[in-house]
Amino acid sequence: MSENNERPLTDIASLGEFGLIDRLTKNARVQNKQTIKGVGDDAAVIDNGDMLTIVTKDLLVEGVHFDMVYTPLKHLGYKAVAVNLSDVYAMNAKPLQVVVGLAISSRYTLEALEELYEGMLLACERYQVDMVGGDTTTSPFGMTLSITAIGQAKKEDVVYRSGAKPNDILFVSGDLGAAYCGLLVLEREKQVYKANPDMQPSMENYAYILERQLKPEPRCDIIELLQKAGVKPTSMIDISDGLASEILHICNNSKTGATIYEEKIPLDHRMGQVAHEFNMDPTTCALNGGEDYELLFTISPADFEKIKDLEEMHPIGHITEAGEGANLFTSSGQLVKLTAQGWDHLRKH
Amino acid sequence: MSENNERPLTDIASLGEFGLIDRLTKNARVQNKQTIKGVGDDAAVIDNGDMLTIVTKDLLVEGVHFDMVYTPLKHLGYKAVAVNLSDVYAMNAKPLQVVVGLAISSRYTLEALEELYEGMLLACERYQVDMVGGDTTTSPFGMTLSITAIGQAKKEDVVYRSGAKPNDILFVSGDLGAAYCGLLVLEREKQVYKANPDMQPSMENYAYILERQLKPEPRCDIIELLQKAGVKPTSMIDISDGLASEILHICNNSKTGATIYEEKIPLDHRMGQVAHEFNMDPTTCALNGGEDYELLFTISPADFEKIKDLEEMHPIGHITEAGEGANLFTSSGQLVKLTAQGWDHLRKH
Repeated sequence: MSENNERPLTDIASLGEFGLIDRLTKNARVQNKQTIKGVGDDAAVIDNGDMLTIVTKDLLVEGVHFDMVYTPLKHLGYKAVAVNLSDVYAMNAKPLQVVVGLAISSRYTLEALEELYEGMLLACERYQVDMVGGDTTTSPFGMTLSITAIGQAKKEDVVYRSGAKPNDILFVSGDLGAAYCGLLVLEREKQVYKANPDMQPSMENYAYILERQLKPEPRCDIIELLQKAGVKPTSMIDISDGLASEILHICNNSKTGATIYEEKIPLDHRMGQVAHEFNMDPTTCALNGGEDYELLFTISPADFEKIKDLEEMHPIGHITEAGEGANLFTSSGQLVKLTAQGWDHLRKH
Repeated sequence: MSENNERPLTDIASLGEFGLIDRLTKNARVQNKQTIKGVGDDAAVIDNGDMLTIVTKDLLVEGVHFDMVYTPLKHLGYKAVAVNLSDVYAMNAKPLQVVVGLAISSRYTLEALEELYEGMLLACERYQVDMVGGDTTTSPFGMTLSITAIGQAKKEDVVYRSGAKPNDILFVSGDLGAAYCGLLVLEREKQVYKANPDMQPSMENYAYILERQLKPEPRCDIIELLQKAGVKPTSMIDISDGLASEILHICNNSKTGATIYEEKIPLDHRMGQVAHEFNMDPTTCALNGGEDYELLFTISPADFEKIKDLEEMHPIGHITEAGEGANLFTSSGQLVKLTAQGWDHLRKH
């Protein structure tokens, strides 16, 4: 490694993931007219004449994003594909292909990898996506899974993070915080298992939140419902890092503020129960937990009537002028500033 | 990890990289009409109306594909982009975008990663490609770099591995074996350095082969020369695993045999010198060394006159009927079967 001894070196953890990406890509210039959107949204957007091509990529690293002690390989494969498809849906596009990169240590057997691929192919089949290539190689340690999803959209259909306007209504799909609570349970049971390997963990009461953690489903159905209703969101993002962080992304990209209402945030009672078990506030789990892979989107107030009665999508607030900042109106009537305390993998370690 | 204790488990090293990929992707079915080519070429090919989109992916893993002791980070970044662009050129397409996945342990500083990105962006600028996104995350160990390159081609221009016909002439660009000899020198100097850290390695005489190993250039120029000459290859592949392995890929995909002539294989004298230093046969380095990132392609005999005098591309043999197999006619007049002993990262460890 080349080092400059004259100036102090910067620990990457001090920058956080988004800070690091900003620093590293600040010199990336766009040279091709076909590149419509580069760094800075759920996915890149490429002009291909009739259609736009949407490309997104996620890395999953053993020991960072998943723990082999409690992650069945089939679920891991399913989730790895699902989270990438989620990024394509968040652009209001249809994912069509995935490319898979896999680096694995020799402790993995063929049979283990077949389970992993079974999961990936199950997600591909479920969402009608083709696995079209990739690269497989050894790794000195553990497993790294790198998936690139490719999608298509008509030019007029693509939705960015940057299109929200003051008075637009903020919606979120499904319910939030459960994936994080699932992780809390898995981590607790892992500790129990480590202390006493004969102890079988009892997971029956946790089926919903564990499924939310281990086998998330990208919200293809929401995209279809919006299309049927004739509503194109003004901005959209998927919730991988927690609601607060994603709202801030929309506000930053759209140069707006936002106000959301705590009582409007959709929470499942099974999540609430587990949060209480861990002495956590359910709202905090929803705001900062992450990995729910629900969609957060804004619509013009004129479209509100068209979707207000649809199931699985919930108005949680509205967009404001930038000067007002991003705020949470709590159930006790206080206005608190939203901060991103989400799932920042670069701070976690 | 889920294991089936009833049957013996299969060590992945016993399958080799290509065997493993075949096993894992045998259940991958194509569901979308836009997917023109899936697993099994240099890149996937996607129909986008007017144009085809070309997608390829490579993983580079510390300790497998590169060694931090002798790989400057700027070179690593350059090479990581270059080898992916090479796969796109090998489809006779133009790369336009790259997406970068980076998993890094906390021992890397911001300054180190800035060097890495400097190298990636230098390659992007040199080949007029846009870096359009990616994912950055921590890793418990070392660095894994996953790059996806995206390109474009007109429908009629794309060249697959599968189009070679008997009597077609096999060409290779540049010269072969030098990248492997560069690696031999770097590995030797690493051992010297480990034995005596005060000893400065003397690399002056090795500039050419080291550059071939550390900073390969994808052969964009060859693609342009062929286009200017009005020649579309019948099949094409880039040489990442050694000439022998790539010829076998073309033969397998085209359902043909091939005969190449040892005396026609382009070798640089500086490579020959180093091969001799290591008591290796230069032809063996060319056949099995890999990482040259030259292009191997076939043309119809009718096109031979159009390119026979062009520099930097050399006829090395011809395509035969499948029954004849893939053979090397040696300088001593023997016909030997070509076998892939290349750069198989899954056997290496």
